[in-house]
Amino acid sequence: MKRVKLVVAYDGTNYKGWQIQKNGETIESVLNRILSQMTGETVRVMGASRTDSGVHAMGNIAVFDTNVRMPGDKFSYALNQRLPEDIRIQHSCEVEPDYHPRYQHTVKTYEYRILNREFPLPAYRLNTYFTYHPLDVERMRQAASYLTGEHDFQSFCAAGAQVNTTVRTIYSLQVLKEGELLIIRVSGSGFLYNMVRIIAGTLMKIGRGEWEPEQMQKILAAKDRRAAGPTAPAKGLTLMSIEDFAERCGE
Amino acid sequence: MKRVKLVVAYDGTNYKGWQIQKNGETIESVLNRILSQMTGETVRVMGASRTDSGVHAMGNIAVFDTNVRMPGDKFSYALNQRLPEDIRIQHSCEVEPDYHPRYQHTVKTYEYRILNREFPLPAYRLNTYFTYHPLDVERMRQAASYLTGEHDFQSFCAAGAQVNTTVRTIYSLQVLKEGELLIIRVSGSGFLYNMVRIIAGTLMKIGRGEWEPEQMQKILAAKDRRAAGPTAPAKGLTLMSIEDFAERCGE
Repeated sequence: MKRVKLVVAYDGTNYKGWQIQKNGETIESVLNRILSQMTGETVRVMGASRTDSGVHAMGNIAVFDTNVRMPGDKFSYALNQRLPEDIRIQHSCEVEPDYHPRYQHTVKTYEYRILNREFPLPAYRLNTYFTYHPLDVERMRQAASYLTGEHDFQSFCAAGAQVNTTVRTIYSLQVLKEGELLIIRVSGSGFLYNMVRIIAGTLMKIGRGEWEPEQMQKILAAKDRRAAGPTAPAKGLTLMSIEDFAERCGE
Repeated sequence: MKRVKLVVAYDGTNYKGWQIQKNGETIESVLNRILSQMTGETVRVMGASRTDSGVHAMGNIAVFDTNVRMPGDKFSYALNQRLPEDIRIQHSCEVEPDYHPRYQHTVKTYEYRILNREFPLPAYRLNTYFTYHPLDVERMRQAASYLTGEHDFQSFCAAGAQVNTTVRTIYSLQVLKEGELLIIRVSGSGFLYNMVRIIAGTLMKIGRGEWEPEQMQKILAAKDRRAAGPTAPAKGLTLMSIEDFAERCGE
């Protein structure tokens, strides 16, 4: 028996998120089905991050156990032959038998992509949120600066989410501009439910001039979801990477 | 009666090209249907470039006549409310009644996009050709340099195409590298059938080291389609723009 780690990229457009649901395909259900077909075993993957319906990933992580003799690094090639083209394994390797993707010390990086111009572009429609309201990047950068570091992010947590603590640490939060594309890039040790999408929705309100950048401090202090802006749509969000210090996989 | 010009962007993945076909949706058929519904007239658009099945556009051009009183620049907004999200009008304006998109002196620019890395990325799957064979950009640039200027491009014309002359002028042909993405960007006054895709297929053969860059001169001199490389797949090709000096639309 060995444990294999997968780095998984996907376009979430056609999936009901990562976690298995009663109705509809999920990334987890596709990986379980294809791995079970491939190995002849009943495979159950464990994911590092249960991304929501419509959210994308460049580097989510999954782990599974198998008795198949194939070397860990060959699973990526074998799986990519069988997976639908909106899911692609980027890397695979054997890890220690007690390795668990959710109990490691990690840095997660998300990007929220916004196309800001007069009309939508079809090439951006699946993984970018479109808005024609002009966004002021400097205002968004100033507002973003109040969020880095350790804070109680209760105002940026979906109402009703069950968590022990709403204190989290944001290591970096950048607002990048590449022509008509705005990218909110955020890294942290962990995020509350909908936290990145609520941050994106709040930054867009400030970028449009509806709120002043300093409002972000008041929103943090309020510790109340109703103080923050709306949850930005799932399609703009991509889980870019999960840096995993416990297991480098020889990368 | 007035004549209206549209600048049209589309993802060609789900269409059988621009031109109306007996079986399957085309960009032209969708535009005709939506414009006819919108105006209550029987509208027939004329396109500047009849892109092939699976080819994309950022700026193809269409023209149509209508008696509707709406100002030319408002058609973009009205159409985008009704079109499927893989087609979006980027600009509209009224033009002279004798304006015809195929009889103007124009510069067309195409891009052929190649993702060159070990595994495909789902986010690039619709508009980028994937290859894991390492491509040497410097070799491709040297080969590309032989193609700029006026030449007989018969070797780069799909066999059986009916044309008066296979002489064309390429104004510029660049091979750009943006990380793992290679972009072949070519501008000219006009292109033969499949010309850009045959150039891309030939440059990739040279980039992989199967042919020397100097082979490009022999391929040109052969004036024989069989001398060139394969036709690269449609999905990598995007018609970026048609610069139209006769009609600036006040842009």
